[in-house]
Amino acid sequence: MRDFSGDHAALSINTATVRKQAKLDAIVEVCARRDIRMICPWRDQVQAVGLAAIAGQLRDTGIALSGYCRGGFFPAADAAGLATALEDNRRAVDEAKTLASPCLVLVVGALPGALTGKAAYKDIELARTQVFDGIAATLEYARKAGMPLAIEPLHPMQAAERACVNTLEQALDICDALDPERSGALGVAVDVYHVWWDPKLAAQIARAGRQRLLAFHVCDWLLPTRDLLNDRGMMGDGIIELRKIRGFMEGAGYGGAAEVEIFSEDWWARPLDDVIATCIERHRSVV
Amino acid sequence: MRDFSGDHAALSINTATVRKQAKLDAIVEVCARRDIRMICPWRDQVQAVGLAAIAGQLRDTGIALSGYCRGGFFPAADAAGLATALEDNRRAVDEAKTLASPCLVLVVGALPGALTGKAAYKDIELARTQVFDGIAATLEYARKAGMPLAIEPLHPMQAAERACVNTLEQALDICDALDPERSGALGVAVDVYHVWWDPKLAAQIARAGRQRLLAFHVCDWLLPTRDLLNDRGMMGDGIIELRKIRGFMEGAGYGGAAEVEIFSEDWWARPLDDVIATCIERHRSVV
Repeated sequence: MRDFSGDHAALSINTATVRKQAKLDAIVEVCARRDIRMICPWRDQVQAVGLAAIAGQLRDTGIALSGYCRGGFFPAADAAGLATALEDNRRAVDEAKTLASPCLVLVVGALPGALTGKAAYKDIELARTQVFDGIAATLEYARKAGMPLAIEPLHPMQAAERACVNTLEQALDICDALDPERSGALGVAVDVYHVWWDPKLAAQIARAGRQRLLAFHVCDWLLPTRDLLNDRGMMGDGIIELRKIRGFMEGAGYGGAAEVEIFSEDWWARPLDDVIATCIERHRSVV
Repeated sequence: MRDFSGDHAALSINTATVRKQAKLDAIVEVCARRDIRMICPWRDQVQAVGLAAIAGQLRDTGIALSGYCRGGFFPAADAAGLATALEDNRRAVDEAKTLASPCLVLVVGALPGALTGKAAYKDIELARTQVFDGIAATLEYARKAGMPLAIEPLHPMQAAERACVNTLEQALDICDALDPERSGALGVAVDVYHVWWDPKLAAQIARAGRQRLLAFHVCDWLLPTRDLLNDRGMMGDGIIELRKIRGFMEGAGYGGAAEVEIFSEDWWARPLDDVIATCIERHRSVV
């Protein structure tokens, strides 16, 4: 296993972690100053500054992407909605390409409308079929663009609203169906927050292997967890066995970034530079 | 599939649903008046009135148990804690026997101490081993007493604090290991709230079959869900496909109760009789 204690060369900051403190260009500036070599920005953060401006800033600072958040949200109540989602995913692929991202992360979506409190339908199998079809269509486009797609299984507590792909096994079944040759065009993003509880975690990470392990996200599960979305903890503050799971990843051939992705009112309330400093410290001490 | 629209013969009330409104004897009284034929009480509710008194009241009213809540919480930080848990589970088996319950429901426990905010350890595999050993030991005792044990997989969002058995597949793997002959001594409690999201739900219910399907709990998943424990919805108020899942159960041979188990500040704040009336109405209309 790699030794992270001496430096933070493998650290990436998912910029949602500090999305309430500053715009993306200011975040990149702080990261550059702290010698952080990778980030994973969200589309809305890029748009708020401008795609070309961010692409330029990344080139200037030498900061690379560990991923781009996010494509997905494929299910819809009607054909027009499904088509709109596909179009939006093609744009996400193009943006990821402009930013030289190694992959586009997919939060696949779930019951359409659920996120705003009113599901258009309850049939989760239908949502899963729409997700499968959406990934298949987007993969065709992404292959041509040379942009790998990383399916991110989300925690089952987000199955109604955000993603109806909820285990690594389920995500890998989709990969096997759509990319049986393991070309590298389709894989998974392993976020410890979403998968730490899974009794099949070690086996499924091993099954994924190097070709399919496109991203690794870290944070922690707090006791108690007070909110289903925005109460992720800083690494070391909860009960996730971070080093053990990183061991599973590296044992399967993963050698990429450890990307910090925290959604937390607590951490959003702290100064940007302090949060980044803490990420660096915890990356070295507990990841 | 059975038709529930004409009566509520298959309805059971898990008495935690109205635990804040009244003591268990008063709950049983209301259930008797409403012609409810089954309940599933919790141990603390029984103790607050007295085991013998409740057993007598059940005989007098002709109300049967659909299950008894709960054994489990096997993991512990040390040998003394493990032994205490086993002893407590033997008592739970005896109480279930006194109340003529068809099974003892097991909420197996997770990281010891996590429920009070401080986990004694983070190793979920260790907790799972302690759970396996605890079920094995309790099963020996329960077999002699003739009391079936129903492992209840809990939602992965409760994996740190309440149960590290989080999928039906995982629960059934334990059943297969400890009761390969499918004797009926060990099975599962299928609570829609905990398993509705599972992509393998239909397949695993079919795998369980009649011998292993010991209980069926209903409620609903609300949009949004505001609390990880106490925000379960009344059947019909959320997005769970209740009838579809009951179809899976009955297709696999299950012919027992549909037990309403709701933990909700909203429903605890309403009058006892209103809640019971709503359970009856929803049992007929949406379950």
